[in-house]
Amino acid sequence: MSAFDHTALDDVIHGRLRLGVMAYLASVTAASFADLKAKVNATDGNLSSHLTKLEEAGYVRIVKSFQGKKPLTQVALTAPGRKAWLDYLDRLRGLLDAAE
Amino acid sequence: MSAFDHTALDDVIHGRLRLGVMAYLASVTAASFADLKAKVNATDGNLSSHLTKLEEAGYVRIVKSFQGKKPLTQVALTAPGRKAWLDYLDRLRGLLDAAE
Repeated sequence: MSAFDHTALDDVIHGRLRLGVMAYLASVTAASFADLKAKVNATDGNLSSHLTKLEEAGYVRIVKSFQGKKPLTQVALTAPGRKAWLDYLDRLRGLLDAAE
Repeated sequence: MSAFDHTALDDVIHGRLRLGVMAYLASVTAASFADLKAKVNATDGNLSSHLTKLEEAGYVRIVKSFQGKKPLTQVALTAPGRKAWLDYLDRLRGLLDAAE
């Protein structure tokens, strides 16, 4: 397979917003929805819909609870999500290295 | 700006197929359409439409000529395309580094 084969990159992760989400979640234990939203510079609706896609792929876990009377949504990578992230990184780095 | 801000990544370059094209073109002086198609694992129609998008952004130059009686299409990065590629790489690497 060519290093430049676009189908080698996991499309669930590659979209810019989801890539930002996966990268940030890879760097923390868990993030609140509000924190994630600020980090990746997204709107509520846009972030929600992309989180659903990542959750459906089994890459993130979304836990809704309450902090006092305030709802709190927390998001974290799952073990398969972390594996998919590392696989994605490997392939992306292979592509970037081949370009040099 | 957060390292995870998805809007920092050039959307013209980021799409998987266009990313493969830009990465391959960054590694060569010019490529034929047939060579590019094999490297990025695309169909004719899909590659054509994405090349048009890159050409409209001024990132690639497409030159059509003949080799004997056979039409030959060659594609190369432009100077602005190379600059956009290097800027994209910087931001992508910043995001990946921040994830570790």
